Amino acid sequence: MKLTRKVYLAGGAHTPFLGKFHPDFVWKGHPDSGKRENPSLEDYTRKPALEALAEAGVAPRDVDKGYVWNFAGELFSQQGHLGAVLASAHPDLDGKPLSRVEGACASGGLAVLAGVDAIQAGADAVLVVGSEVQTTVSAKQGAEYLARAAHWKSQRSIDPFTFPCLFARRAKVYKEAFGLEDADIAKVVAKAYANAAKNPFAHMRAYRMTEEMAREASDKNPFFLENAEYKQHLKVSDCSQVSDGGSAVVLLSEAGLKKAGKQPRDAISLLSYGHATGKIEGPSDLLELETTKRAAKTAYEQAGLAPRDVSMAEVHDCFAICELLMLEALGFCEKGEAKKLVRAGENRIDGKIPVNTGGGLLAFGHPVGATGVKQTYEIFRQMKRRAAGYQIASPVRVGIAANMGGDDRTSVVTLWRNVE
Amino acid sequence: MKLTRKVYLAGGAHTPFLGKFHPDFVWKGHPDSGKRENPSLEDYTRKPALEALAEAGVAPRDVDKGYVWNFAGELFSQQGHLGAVLASAHPDLDGKPLSRVEGACASGGLAVLAGVDAIQAGADAVLVVGSEVQTTVSAKQGAEYLARAAHWKSQRSIDPFTFPCLFARRAKVYKEAFGLEDADIAKVVAKAYANAAKNPFAHMRAYRMTEEMAREASDKNPFFLENAEYKQHLKVSDCSQVSDGGSAVVLLSEAGLKKAGKQPRDAISLLSYGHATGKIEGPSDLLELETTKRAAKTAYEQAGLAPRDVSMAEVHDCFAICELLMLEALGFCEKGEAKKLVRAGENRIDGKIPVNTGGGLLAFGHPVGATGVKQTYEIFRQMKRRAAGYQIASPVRVGIAANMGGDDRTSVVTLWRNVE
Repeated sequence: MKLTRKVYLAGGAHTPFLGKFHPDFVWKGHPDSGKRENPSLEDYTRKPALEALAEAGVAPRDVDKGYVWNFAGELFSQQGHLGAVLASAHPDLDGKPLSRVEGACASGGLAVLAGVDAIQAGADAVLVVGSEVQTTVSAKQGAEYLARAAHWKSQRSIDPFTFPCLFARRAKVYKEAFGLEDADIAKVVAKAYANAAKNPFAHMRAYRMTEEMAREASDKNPFFLENAEYKQHLKVSDCSQVSDGGSAVVLLSEAGLKKAGKQPRDAISLLSYGHATGKIEGPSDLLELETTKRAAKTAYEQAGLAPRDVSMAEVHDCFAICELLMLEALGFCEKGEAKKLVRAGENRIDGKIPVNTGGGLLAFGHPVGATGVKQTYEIFRQMKRRAAGYQIASPVRVGIAANMGGDDRTSVVTLWRNVE
Repeated sequence: MKLTRKVYLAGGAHTPFLGKFHPDFVWKGHPDSGKRENPSLEDYTRKPALEALAEAGVAPRDVDKGYVWNFAGELFSQQGHLGAVLASAHPDLDGKPLSRVEGACASGGLAVLAGVDAIQAGADAVLVVGSEVQTTVSAKQGAEYLARAAHWKSQRSIDPFTFPCLFARRAKVYKEAFGLEDADIAKVVAKAYANAAKNPFAHMRAYRMTEEMAREASDKNPFFLENAEYKQHLKVSDCSQVSDGGSAVVLLSEAGLKKAGKQPRDAISLLSYGHATGKIEGPSDLLELETTKRAAKTAYEQAGLAPRDVSMAEVHDCFAICELLMLEALGFCEKGEAKKLVRAGENRIDGKIPVNTGGGLLAFGHPVGATGVKQTYEIFRQMKRRAAGYQIASPVRVGIAANMGGDDRTSVVTLWRNVE
């Protein structure tokens, strides 16, 4: 739908994304083990919310609506009803209209869109928060929880690690169809870790992963699936991180922006969005992200823009193969051709279309509910030249974010313009 | 917020609400046990969706957005990502923008509000579905799942049946403060079952519960809490049902109504709404539903109406005490005075303010995600004189629905007008 009222993003916040291999994450063997606990889901929901409001210049009492996203708080943290969790972040938020929105890993993107609808409906200030805690259980148990974003009845049994296996299946058929090589995938992985190394919020900022290490399976980087058909198509390094974390952004109308004491040039503005949801049973073509393609088409058409107009992309690389599939679904190249972009380094921070400059889901980390919100705030940070160690050198005029839930079953694509 | 575009409700559907004591519900000892299974969460999501579209005259391809509500599909049915579950209800829904919204037991109401925002933002046809399956686990396990809508960290330990105990606490303090008697509560219970007996969709339609039976604890109607302080303030008959079921409604703009081939008089229209969310840690005054009161105040002010203008109410009687608290929060009487209305029978179908004419959560049943959607469709059915055996005799001009999540932590109040 066409936007009838302008939507500005005028501030946000990330918590550091934490998990295994992050120096601040407390686990067995950490010097702080037993002395302090990792932050909770409540912390990851409330802290970025208050910081985002502060950056946007919006007092909690001036929030008209709020949305929080999280996929599986009930399972990982025994806590649902996250609108009410957000309500206790500040006395002035207590009593506000706050809700939670869900679309599996695309929930953060959906929460942003719910905020956009609220602005269209007359709200002037909307708080959007994404948060997730996943490190409370083993990786295998976590994989079982996340499998509820697939079609449990027909897909759960593919592997104890259901989603990794669904994407190993995509990797296999794509490699066979289009001649993609493991070396190409390793380039995507190494680029993600190199970007994360410069990002203070990134889960894997202190972990070294080179192309050589990512190229072949090893003791430290094993094939870990049980499914014999797909096992050799997914190594640990091809997977996004099991992270805890939170991100928040504040969306404002023109009146809201003025009330916050901001100029349009302090903000970025939404050009358009696309949102599509495919049937839970699975995709009809494993060689492309059909739902993302559909959402991207809507977004480009509404904005009257083409892929060549885009200066940066935040894409949903829950597995390394997805960055390639995303490059195609967002129209940066034809189907099957993403390897050329990757081989030429065009997705690097100094390339033609910088992708996931903060490290992406692979190395920035993937606290499921936070991811879609994080993407939009990353676009703000790059456009406003706040990305410090990983700032894109040239001006960032138009940014695209593509947030996907499940095996490309829900997709949210947003296009943003830098107000200069 | 003021509505800038009109919102019509032009059709909907309920599945029968099923569970223990319903003749069609298959359980150990049922003649069909082992021969057929009870419907699944997928069935309860898709069936009412398609029926609602048919009643509203809207083709699946004409749906602009869709929302589904469910609280705990991940826990009861191992299935999340319910937007994508809805996408497979019909080939023309595949690819549509569909999401899930959460606010515990108020999720259905929130899904309706998300639909309202979408209409304000330019959508012409929005499908809203609520569904829940809860009979897959024991009542005690289910209570543990639902406790995630409370503040797990501080409230879970109050009793293995966390929510029943939180409301037994309310019953105790209210009885002590305002002289409410068990006989008053029994009147509320018996009225609910009497209404349900005439409603073909009701879970407890075949179960007899008289005032006498509801008044005192017995072998068949025991005090079941472990918490010694609150135990004697809650019997089984005071509780809503653990039900499976689904409800759906279709919201239309003026253009959408025209496209569906309907006249305004075929529909009901939204006058206003209120939505408030209180802090997860719990209420500050146990003697009133402060969040519902706040939401109701907003709704009345926006509509320019007073409680005396309302011809029927659908309220969230998750426990019998709540119907009394709701009567006060919605302004039908002063704080502490609801017992007078109940003693005079004013909440009965032939009373001054008929409440929960289909049996309410106590006896129509409470498939958590469906409840808020069900309430709005019940208002449509009464206004359009389709309530058959339990039709209110006088014309129903204005209806109010109050849907609450957790211990009054999220509340959605909507006011509807019959277009005559």
